[in-house]
Amino acid sequence: MDGPDKWFFDKINRNLMQLHAISDVLYSGRTKFQSIEILRSPAFGKLLVLDGKIQSAEVDEFVYHEALVHPPMIAHPEPEKVFIAGGGEGATLREVLRHPSVKKAVMVDIDADVIKVCREFLPDYHAGAFDDKRARLYNTDARKWLAESKEKFDVIIIDLTEPVEEGPAYLLYTKEFYDIVRGKLTPDGLISVQSGSTSYVELVNIKAVARTLRSIFPIVRVYQADIPAFGGPWGFCVASMATDPVKLTPREIDRRIKARGLDKLRFYDGTAHRGMFTFPRHMRRALAGGGRLITDARPLYLYEG
Amino acid sequence: MDGPDKWFFDKINRNLMQLHAISDVLYSGRTKFQSIEILRSPAFGKLLVLDGKIQSAEVDEFVYHEALVHPPMIAHPEPEKVFIAGGGEGATLREVLRHPSVKKAVMVDIDADVIKVCREFLPDYHAGAFDDKRARLYNTDARKWLAESKEKFDVIIIDLTEPVEEGPAYLLYTKEFYDIVRGKLTPDGLISVQSGSTSYVELVNIKAVARTLRSIFPIVRVYQADIPAFGGPWGFCVASMATDPVKLTPREIDRRIKARGLDKLRFYDGTAHRGMFTFPRHMRRALAGGGRLITDARPLYLYEG
Amino acid sequence: MDGPDKWFFDKINRNLMQLHAISDVLYSGRTKFQSIEILRSPAFGKLLVLDGKIQSAEVDEFVYHEALVHPPMIAHPEPEKVFIAGGGEGATLREVLRHPSVKKAVMVDIDADVIKVCREFLPDYHAGAFDDKRARLYNTDARKWLAESKEKFDVIIIDLTEPVEEGPAYLLYTKEFYDIVRGKLTPDGLISVQSGSTSYVELVNIKAVARTLRSIFPIVRVYQADIPAFGGPWGFCVASMATDPVKLTPREIDRRIKARGLDKLRFYDGTAHRGMFTFPRHMRRALAGGGRLITDARPLYLYEG
Amino acid sequence: MDGPDKWFFDKINRNLMQLHAISDVLYSGRTKFQSIEILRSPAFGKLLVLDGKIQSAEVDEFVYHEALVHPPMIAHPEPEKVFIAGGGEGATLREVLRHPSVKKAVMVDIDADVIKVCREFLPDYHAGAFDDKRARLYNTDARKWLAESKEKFDVIIIDLTEPVEEGPAYLLYTKEFYDIVRGKLTPDGLISVQSGSTSYVELVNIKAVARTLRSIFPIVRVYQADIPAFGGPWGFCVASMATDPVKLTPREIDRRIKARGLDKLRFYDGTAHRGMFTFPRHMRRALAGGGRLITDARPLYLYEG
Repeated sequence: MDGPDKWFFDKINRNLMQLHAISDVLYSGRTKFQSIEILRSPAFGKLLVLDGKIQSAEVDEFVYHEALVHPPMIAHPEPEKVFIAGGGEGATLREVLRHPSVKKAVMVDIDADVIKVCREFLPDYHAGAFDDKRARLYNTDARKWLAESKEKFDVIIIDLTEPVEEGPAYLLYTKEFYDIVRGKLTPDGLISVQSGSTSYVELVNIKAVARTLRSIFPIVRVYQADIPAFGGPWGFCVASMATDPVKLTPREIDRRIKARGLDKLRFYDGTAHRGMFTFPRHMRRALAGGGRLITDARPLYLYEG
Repeated sequence: MDGPDKWFFDKINRNLMQLHAISDVLYSGRTKFQSIEILRSPAFGKLLVLDGKIQSAEVDEFVYHEALVHPPMIAHPEPEKVFIAGGGEGATLREVLRHPSVKKAVMVDIDADVIKVCREFLPDYHAGAFDDKRARLYNTDARKWLAESKEKFDVIIIDLTEPVEEGPAYLLYTKEFYDIVRGKLTPDGLISVQSGSTSYVELVNIKAVARTLRSIFPIVRVYQADIPAFGGPWGFCVASMATDPVKLTPREIDRRIKARGLDKLRFYDGTAHRGMFTFPRHMRRALAGGGRLITDARPLYLYEG
Repeated sequence: MDGPDKWFFDKINRNLMQLHAISDVLYSGRTKFQSIEILRSPAFGKLLVLDGKIQSAEVDEFVYHEALVHPPMIAHPEPEKVFIAGGGEGATLREVLRHPSVKKAVMVDIDADVIKVCREFLPDYHAGAFDDKRARLYNTDARKWLAESKEKFDVIIIDLTEPVEEGPAYLLYTKEFYDIVRGKLTPDGLISVQSGSTSYVELVNIKAVARTLRSIFPIVRVYQADIPAFGGPWGFCVASMATDPVKLTPREIDRRIKARGLDKLRFYDGTAHRGMFTFPRHMRRALAGGGRLITDARPLYLYEG
Repeated sequence: MDGPDKWFFDKINRNLMQLHAISDVLYSGRTKFQSIEILRSPAFGKLLVLDGKIQSAEVDEFVYHEALVHPPMIAHPEPEKVFIAGGGEGATLREVLRHPSVKKAVMVDIDADVIKVCREFLPDYHAGAFDDKRARLYNTDARKWLAESKEKFDVIIIDLTEPVEEGPAYLLYTKEFYDIVRGKLTPDGLISVQSGSTSYVELVNIKAVARTLRSIFPIVRVYQADIPAFGGPWGFCVASMATDPVKLTPREIDRRIKARGLDKLRFYDGTAHRGMFTFPRHMRRALAGGGRLITDARPLYLYEG
């Protein structure tokens, strides 16, 4: 073949694969919970791959992490305590800690080995966040930790791998888990959740996550950002008992960004915020209807559609 | 392999391929100008493939064609005469003819065989448009036809394959061609151009098209829509001497849609319009700078980046 | 991609795939027992694919079928009655019927739909064999048919798909089945079995088949032929209570071929015969040792190694 | 995809690719002459890849190197001086030096960087051969070296990459080069040449090499060995003015092997020798006819068929 000869196969779904040319395998191993690889792609830089799925790429990880973190953080007037479930790369923590109001950020990721490998091979991802005095890191099950905690949080961010059968994350996408989350949020607190593809042909996961959140929270919003390394637009949900991020104008968002000194953001601002929540007609229709309730008894697995 | 065993390789760029499972080859041949295939995909329905690149898929062709056609058509207060360069499937013509003000739609596609194959295998694409009395179809070089024409048009739509070396379209992306277009537009006329990927890692083409349009038109706007069959967000440019589609509010767009009886649109409405022109920060920055001038002497070829 | 854009993925084993460019899908369906496809390859002509595995290709099917049939047929001094298990394409039957001494050839293939599709799309494979008066065709389980039969056969040919879990063939590779076969062979009768790859890195299957035959027959010989469509050399076993094909000289084989009027054979002759049974040192060593006993209670499945 | 996610694409020909799962990239670089990679495959061990083509694999390199070296070395009654063109891994040299009669082995490989990388990453390949006192290593053009040499050799071994346009090897496959070789051989000297695939569908290269050798040497023999890492059987030519390896009986070969103390050979012996030169009928026919003359003015390039 003319061109690259080494390719990483990313299975988007049963009928679609994205092949990334790779130039190097920086790390390849297996933790107690999952396989982990650090690959180098000429187009996307370093890739973090867990259980065969790209988690983030050097070139566009800022899009994913800013999109996951800042909508709920900005929607909250003054977030002081933040909880992160997952987030092994440290980049979600990095974005959270940018907000000067944050006094404490608890990150619970079950897989200490992922964190260790990321610290070594992807130092730009956490960018020192793990060493910030406001950060608390625990390597245990995030659901268990949260259930047993007596604290309340202003923002809870769910940054997990997709729910794979027997994988470490599938019990953190259920109604029962979101019910625990609600109990740990302050009254105007928000939760954001990475929720899978928003490709028009691949909406099963995000619809189920949104449907399940709606069974717990009165305010649930779906939003998206295009993340090339993932092969298209990626979806998130933000939910709350009282705070609706869609009510914020671009102007108000830009005002808060400035007030908080977040001028180094690369992806997020008032205009980006508006774009993220603005879906065309067929997507609004598709996202409005249906979606199934995810429960402990009947969890969601990737590709179930 | 578990799962599908037949795959279509779509080369997105040198370092990225999208593989579509296919279940059938409905047609495979070669015209005077290009290779043409009609494939069946379990996920996307029928695929039209020219010179190895997916042109449109049954499941999401409405997104592409509505996104290409309606922004300039709605921005124009009353489009009567429309010119389409390319558009072999007939779906661009179909969308144009939805507008009741249209009195004449000229479509010039060099490849009569593509039209013939599409009429036979993709009848839902044109949906009768080729038989509409307002339609005029010519199989010749669109640039030559336009240059020699004495007519002026309210909207000119460039719906061509990407510029491949020796391919039929590369001389319809140049400054010289857009200069011809300007001469054939009515004073408040608009041109829209399919302009390639708006993936953050693949902006060479769209930046060059935008840059080249800016050398001719004072108003040039880039916009996008997510088209899963193309492997991500797809870009378009709209340009004009006098009319700026971005100035239209969603409310005004919805009013025009209603007034023109376009209630069957699936993708486009006022909200969609706003979303299409709303880019996050890194994309605004990336699209703002640079891009090279495309000329007859130095044409653009796909993947030149 | 420069070059072909449609590929058939043939999984050779867990770590090796062969990709065939395909130009057309002539047929694609599912029978009661398996999936079936007829594909067209520019390099190999029409391909018959069952459950995702290439069974035979137009360009080199003669190699496979001659290699499976003629060693036992020629080793037998005058084969009159022949039994074929499987062989849906009809090409094994075609080769058997070339031998003028044959009075009756019974073919038992469980899947009538495979035969139907092959007759329609691959008429050159059977070349009229199904209509030969000496042929008897039954669509039932070959093991059951043989167990209940009161006839004895001079040659029994096992031309089955590889043993896939839940597939139609895995109980026709066991010790218990070969024991039935022994009971249905005439005293100097022979059995030949298609036995999977003889690639040096992929010998699990053929070693198990040979080991299992050796538990029943005193004479068991492994041989091979290179079949490009299968991605390398392919293995067969021939077994008997009394007749050893290796004892035949090339000269004697060529004499029998001439006496039987088999001058149209393309692959097989005395020299080919010698080559098929002649393995280099590492292969002799690898094939000599081990291999596990296949039983009804512990059947063999493809790729188990 | 279930299973491996990183694959090396080996283009066998325009319509056939072999995909090897890889677990690691041990080295990836570019020399003055070609790209070079050392990959790790779970099935084949370390792979040496030059210009995107697998040159040898840890698991079966002994087959390739023994097949290339021992037929001419054993056919010669007492080889004292040996010349190797190419052979960067050092494994051809290793096999040559096993013969105790060898007093001097000259190896000329243009690419010093390939040798350096192989010495570091594939130490088992040369197994100390580079440090043997009988070895002379030159990094220059083998044709030029040979043309200017005043020595004569008993055996000349051509162990080059396949002829790729602009590649380092294509002028070492021509009539003019073989004419130089003839002038440097002792009267009963032999030359062996790695000659490309002997897959029935891919005989263009080997037929051209054989045809070209026949224009110079009265005795030319084609032989093959199955090399799984190359995706099937691989061909070689051996040629001479006076010595015909086919005339040696297996018994005589085994006697010479014993006399020379070559009992550690894994692939080659008298039986292997017979098998290598024994082709079935269709292959004998295909190899007998045609093949074009390769000349400096009209060199052979890979895949020209």
